[in-house]
Amino acid sequence: MNINRIIGDIDAVTGGAAACTRPSYGAADAEARAYFFRAFEELGLEIRTDGAGNIRAAMKGKEPELAPVLVGSHIDTVNNGGRFDGLLGVVCALECLRIFKEKGHTPRRNVEVVIFAEEEASNFGVTLLGSKLLTGKLAPASLKGIFNDAGQSADDVIRNAGFDPSRFAEADETEANERDDDEPGHTSEILKPDEIYAMLEMHIEQGSVLDNSKISVGIVENIAGMETYRVVLTGPSGHAGGTPMANRKDPMVAAAEIILCIQKAAEGADSGTAVATVGKLSVRPGATNVIAREVEFFVDIRDANDASVEDLAESLKFFAESIGEKQGLIAQVDRISKSFAIGLDGDVIETIDRAAEDLGTPGLHMYSGPVHDAGMMAGVTRVGMIFVPSIGGLSHCPEEDTRPTDIEIGANVLLETVKRLAEGV
Amino acid sequence: MNINRIIGDIDAVTGGAAACTRPSYGAADAEARAYFFRAFEELGLEIRTDGAGNIRAAMKGKEPELAPVLVGSHIDTVNNGGRFDGLLGVVCALECLRIFKEKGHTPRRNVEVVIFAEEEASNFGVTLLGSKLLTGKLAPASLKGIFNDAGQSADDVIRNAGFDPSRFAEADETEANERDDDEPGHTSEILKPDEIYAMLEMHIEQGSVLDNSKISVGIVENIAGMETYRVVLTGPSGHAGGTPMANRKDPMVAAAEIILCIQKAAEGADSGTAVATVGKLSVRPGATNVIAREVEFFVDIRDANDASVEDLAESLKFFAESIGEKQGLIAQVDRISKSFAIGLDGDVIETIDRAAEDLGTPGLHMYSGPVHDAGMMAGVTRVGMIFVPSIGGLSHCPEEDTRPTDIEIGANVLLETVKRLAEGV
Repeated sequence: MNINRIIGDIDAVTGGAAACTRPSYGAADAEARAYFFRAFEELGLEIRTDGAGNIRAAMKGKEPELAPVLVGSHIDTVNNGGRFDGLLGVVCALECLRIFKEKGHTPRRNVEVVIFAEEEASNFGVTLLGSKLLTGKLAPASLKGIFNDAGQSADDVIRNAGFDPSRFAEADETEANERDDDEPGHTSEILKPDEIYAMLEMHIEQGSVLDNSKISVGIVENIAGMETYRVVLTGPSGHAGGTPMANRKDPMVAAAEIILCIQKAAEGADSGTAVATVGKLSVRPGATNVIAREVEFFVDIRDANDASVEDLAESLKFFAESIGEKQGLIAQVDRISKSFAIGLDGDVIETIDRAAEDLGTPGLHMYSGPVHDAGMMAGVTRVGMIFVPSIGGLSHCPEEDTRPTDIEIGANVLLETVKRLAEGV
Repeated sequence: MNINRIIGDIDAVTGGAAACTRPSYGAADAEARAYFFRAFEELGLEIRTDGAGNIRAAMKGKEPELAPVLVGSHIDTVNNGGRFDGLLGVVCALECLRIFKEKGHTPRRNVEVVIFAEEEASNFGVTLLGSKLLTGKLAPASLKGIFNDAGQSADDVIRNAGFDPSRFAEADETEANERDDDEPGHTSEILKPDEIYAMLEMHIEQGSVLDNSKISVGIVENIAGMETYRVVLTGPSGHAGGTPMANRKDPMVAAAEIILCIQKAAEGADSGTAVATVGKLSVRPGATNVIAREVEFFVDIRDANDASVEDLAESLKFFAESIGEKQGLIAQVDRISKSFAIGLDGDVIETIDRAAEDLGTPGLHMYSGPVHDAGMMAGVTRVGMIFVPSIGGLSHCPEEDTRPTDIEIGANVLLETVKRLAEGV
């Protein structure tokens, strides 16, 4: 793989900036799409864009009637995110097909670069929107009920960007019955099992396991299960000067105690891989001289092991209720999302493993705390993921970085794995 | 004192609502001012409004050339505040003069109802604005450099409300030299020492000391000293899923630890009256799935004892720096305000004491955690404060309440004290 060409693609899409804000369906996203369209056209790929704005660009194989191998990731970013999250996987997928073309290699199966839309939840707070629609995990009708910060529905935003999410609607039974045999009926764009032979995603780790181990390639065995909770603590409020410490019912103090408890519980979890994070917290009324009336915060709990996630969630509820009660507060704990841990495909993992070993750069088996489009795709096809190290574990920030040597090693493992999978029977 | 008339005034100004939002210089404030103007005119008082919108309404005494006794409080509120904070003290001051008139009592000295403007900092984040201007603690020129949330300067807002803050400017030396003896030169409205004989403020406690002790009258000995700090903790951020617990530098966790430490330090302070409050906290970027990059919070520290405030402030700096360092974060601690504890006048306190005892309702000597206009006035005259209980200690909220019997008892102590002070030599 040509590392200069890979970095060149990254620089071209990001304009060389370290800080990237490129939500799906916006202007920067449209520019990035146009860049990839030109690159795909240069390679003579057959491009399709679906009703969510997911892009598939196919290189014809020797036996194009066989189910294709998909390779790719996403190109959207969080606000003020980094250069590599998502984009690197798409650029390396493109580079695979460039190499095939340069070397005159025609794979047995079609190989398609896939770009998933709206992975980061930057618009509507829903992660993996494109892959969820594509795999039938999210009904297109529900897009009318989720909104961006400007109050526009996902349905409107996606349609304004030129895509038609109703193309994911399941075929209407009545219509199907009334359909003439000659007339091509309504066909949902939701992927069917066996429609795809396998899918590969290369991604930065977004954690520090590889960086700490000085290993260039991570082979993902599973993607973490995850639950997100909203905790609201409510008290009587009061004047910061007029209320002696002994008479206080302060939700800020209770929140601090709960945050430390859940932190310690995650650190002490038997699995050794559990994480719990409070990254969003609001204090109301939020004045320096007023004891808070209400503190709301969110707890993101993850582990490779679903039982461990559930244990931590139970602990959180216990902490919130007991500490809230001790402080004389009303504590409300609501689960706002849950996703089960996803095991990736054993055969694909083995293919990556052997490719990495054959290249002299054996990979580290690991689990992914972050969720990925690959996790959604695992519901409809055999999926594997290749991680490359994030320096210092940093991601979702402009300091996000990966050494070019690591990118090159990871990309070569990707190329070799794609090559082998595309020959698969 | 006539409790029905007092409650009638409260209901008239608040429209009977429990929740009050009446910042100075707004429409609701103008209505309240008009109400009091009518009441003052009915009593034949001489009304003056100064350059900050502070109002003084004077009842002539037998020896009107003597320095007057002032009695009053403020009529502005916090956002979504209660019915009694400030307003009760003004209404009871008015009721004192109504009683004087009804009973045909002419005090020796003039007695003036005083209404201070913008006590609550609701517009510009600066507490006690009216009394600070009146006592020379704030230069009118500085009003051009403080702004409301809409970006308007305090100078503009006050002028738009019809007041001229430049009337507090100190006489210009040059102008004074050029002044003819006959021509009344520029005279600053800042109060001079000895201009006021004494000042009394009745106020709800905004704490639960009286309510817990079942005592109707508090006699304030001193107003708390106070320091406010801003603490900013900065780390590398990171992905909530990708960063193992052991590799985290999480400012949210450090903030939680510091909040609990400063809370325990205040609880354990030798003075027994220290309080520390974190009522405002922001997490950035503030996403559920991102380990915070920065947590900013404010710590409000108060005590009757300045040394105790300083001790707690030192503890806060120690906690922030040591916990920040332990977590690998940058910790910045800045003091954003400081006010020394203020002792009220011994003679006035004794006068209140005897009045309360003579009425058979002896008061509890206490300190005030909240700041009050009386504290500013203590710089230019002899000041006393009478507290009445806040049910459950609640204030700055619609649940703020005081029993009518307590109001009546407190108001009678106020009346008797005003009567005695106004006879003073």
